[in-house]
Amino acid sequence: MRAALISVGTELLMGQTVNTNVVYLSQQLNLLGFDVLYHHTVGDNPARLREVIDLSRRDCDLILTTGGLGPTQDDLTKEIACEAFHDTLVLHEPSMAALKEAFCKRHRHMTDNNLKQSYMPTRAVVFDNEQGTAPGFALEDGGQYILCIPGPPREMKAMYERRVRPFLEEIGEGGTVYFRDIMTYGIGESQLETALLPLIDGQTDPTFATYAKEGESYLRIASKDRDPAVARSRVEAAIKNVRQIVGAFIYSTDGGTLPETVGAKLLEQGLTISSAESCTGGMFASALIAIPGISSVFDRGLVTYSNEAKMAELGVREETLAAHGAVSEETAREMADGLYRVCGSDICVSVTGIAGPEGGSDEKPVGLAYIGLCFRGQTEVYRVEPRNVSRAWNRNKSMLEMFWHVYELLEKVSQDGYYDARS
Amino acid sequence: MRAALISVGTELLMGQTVNTNVVYLSQQLNLLGFDVLYHHTVGDNPARLREVIDLSRRDCDLILTTGGLGPTQDDLTKEIACEAFHDTLVLHEPSMAALKEAFCKRHRHMTDNNLKQSYMPTRAVVFDNEQGTAPGFALEDGGQYILCIPGPPREMKAMYERRVRPFLEEIGEGGTVYFRDIMTYGIGESQLETALLPLIDGQTDPTFATYAKEGESYLRIASKDRDPAVARSRVEAAIKNVRQIVGAFIYSTDGGTLPETVGAKLLEQGLTISSAESCTGGMFASALIAIPGISSVFDRGLVTYSNEAKMAELGVREETLAAHGAVSEETAREMADGLYRVCGSDICVSVTGIAGPEGGSDEKPVGLAYIGLCFRGQTEVYRVEPRNVSRAWNRNKSMLEMFWHVYELLEKVSQDGYYDARS
Repeated sequence: MRAALISVGTELLMGQTVNTNVVYLSQQLNLLGFDVLYHHTVGDNPARLREVIDLSRRDCDLILTTGGLGPTQDDLTKEIACEAFHDTLVLHEPSMAALKEAFCKRHRHMTDNNLKQSYMPTRAVVFDNEQGTAPGFALEDGGQYILCIPGPPREMKAMYERRVRPFLEEIGEGGTVYFRDIMTYGIGESQLETALLPLIDGQTDPTFATYAKEGESYLRIASKDRDPAVARSRVEAAIKNVRQIVGAFIYSTDGGTLPETVGAKLLEQGLTISSAESCTGGMFASALIAIPGISSVFDRGLVTYSNEAKMAELGVREETLAAHGAVSEETAREMADGLYRVCGSDICVSVTGIAGPEGGSDEKPVGLAYIGLCFRGQTEVYRVEPRNVSRAWNRNKSMLEMFWHVYELLEKVSQDGYYDARS
Repeated sequence: MRAALISVGTELLMGQTVNTNVVYLSQQLNLLGFDVLYHHTVGDNPARLREVIDLSRRDCDLILTTGGLGPTQDDLTKEIACEAFHDTLVLHEPSMAALKEAFCKRHRHMTDNNLKQSYMPTRAVVFDNEQGTAPGFALEDGGQYILCIPGPPREMKAMYERRVRPFLEEIGEGGTVYFRDIMTYGIGESQLETALLPLIDGQTDPTFATYAKEGESYLRIASKDRDPAVARSRVEAAIKNVRQIVGAFIYSTDGGTLPETVGAKLLEQGLTISSAESCTGGMFASALIAIPGISSVFDRGLVTYSNEAKMAELGVREETLAAHGAVSEETAREMADGLYRVCGSDICVSVTGIAGPEGGSDEKPVGLAYIGLCFRGQTEVYRVEPRNVSRAWNRNKSMLEMFWHVYELLEKVSQDGYYDARS
């Protein structure tokens, strides 16, 4: 089936917002076997929205719109979609009840314009919204479908996964795409592609596609078949081949991020962890604490940004700071050692670096960082080579390096078998 | 003048690439006073490219395409644009000379298909490409313009800045758009619109548009005029009116985020700050440390996730935890008080809450949090009303509440004048 994506929102036309919705939805629709032929974006303008709907109906079976379902006067997607697909809007009682309950729960006053969100086309399949106030819906006319879902990415994704995907699987032509994302660290996207060229070249199924992520790169292996088990076994065979070539860089074969992978391993191995951060300012702790259930292994994180904090919280010596500076192998080591003295976690990881844009020198350029990694009192220090893309990039890079070294340590601990975490 | 942006590239329809070109070009065109009415994306398909060009010609004076100018058979943008604008392609000698030179310089062999890039419409204004091999061009037909430029962002931007912008300034109507983003906290998008309806209704210049951001909402006020000073003064007058209605919710009138606003105020008022976080796990510290130069006021952040860490690092009493629980007004207060004892920062802010998805109860539902705010030894505690959208949302909400209460404190301190920060 052929599909068009329509995004509604003046903020997109103003260049205020990056359209990440179409990226997500294009990937999803392609995985379900839809051919996406168009992306259209229009503002809150009924005539132009109607124009792109009509254009899409010429050669697409499915139109998926995002945005313009809000409570304000500007929000007209539902009205136009309903008109183009020859239906009328009526009050949808379950949506109104849900809306009232949501406002009641939040102790917020429901303004009259909110009621607008409870009207739905008479023939609509309504998609309730667990994350916000605007429901979505699907409407069919002459064998063609229009699906209208909210624009805020969080609401859109939740509704897609819970309601839209099952709906599309039902109306689609069958056959599914099975894919796995092979996550790597320490190898660039073009290096990854070059290394895998013998596998990729001339390959039609499974397909291999490499992607770059901030400071990382990953590989998507996908296969399409009527029988999901066949698609799956093709992908799994391909993963084995990929492992033989770039296995040293792979930390996950199911799309899990580096913090998620490390968090799962910590929980599995029952090892406790604490962190002492300078340049990353809490990003490591924050990424780890994003994982549900991590409280049983994460003890504490210290953001020791000033020299005073490094001395007071971690016992870093004044002489060390004076002789080697806050960004040095010695300071990173004393931070990790000090953290271990303070909290006794199995793993104590520290970082100190120059995030920039100021504060660099020839000897210690912006982007340089050191990571201290203490496992039960034994500390190693790792250097983060400076690249200095931006303050945000440098901080993210240092955080990823922390996770990567913890990951390698966890691998070693579990493989060597010299330590039973549960003892 | 009205404009449409057309992106050509199958990778966009597959969801492999984020379309950052349209973000950049939309911003640029809006600043030059163009109204961007459409974004269209099509693959390497001549019929569909022609369709969106023809649609755009119905109500736009300017069509700007990116992509599809490469040397391969798939690349057909130039051919289709030329056809739609009633011209024919001829060999363009300067482009061919430049192409040959580029290949020679890079010691690369020029394949025959590269020559394709030297053909240009007879009436074209050619834009040479200093960053790549595909030149761009502008073509006029009946008072309408089509401009075709390369897709790779680096080439696109360089060509835009060097050649396209001057061309557009020449054909444009003059006049620029001046806008300001009015950032609010604690008021929903629909409430914001309702409150401002008397100002917004029937207003054509300046225009008012409300937007939702995760846990926040903001208002864009824009004005267009030949004289930039006139546009600016209209927007500034409107900001005054908006302030009279929703001033209590506004924290910035220049688009600055809440952490940025708080960071700037801390630096300006010379007040030091430290944080003790539980459920947000370092997000507050991390957001603050994202601000360059913040090291002069940010002392330290503690992520005291376990009860042990709360007791050891902050001196929270075991009895308090036993009697009231880790998520309680009392614990939040002792965390802030304890942090002040440890570091003596002017402002010590703490948070403890239930991020979820597990760990909630009837009495203390998921999403509930308490914030302790200690200013020079005086501590107030604030409750974060639970809404429980998701773990990530709850954590973000708690972090925003921390910043909001610090913001309000900073406002009070500076307005009351009872304390001179620089003393």
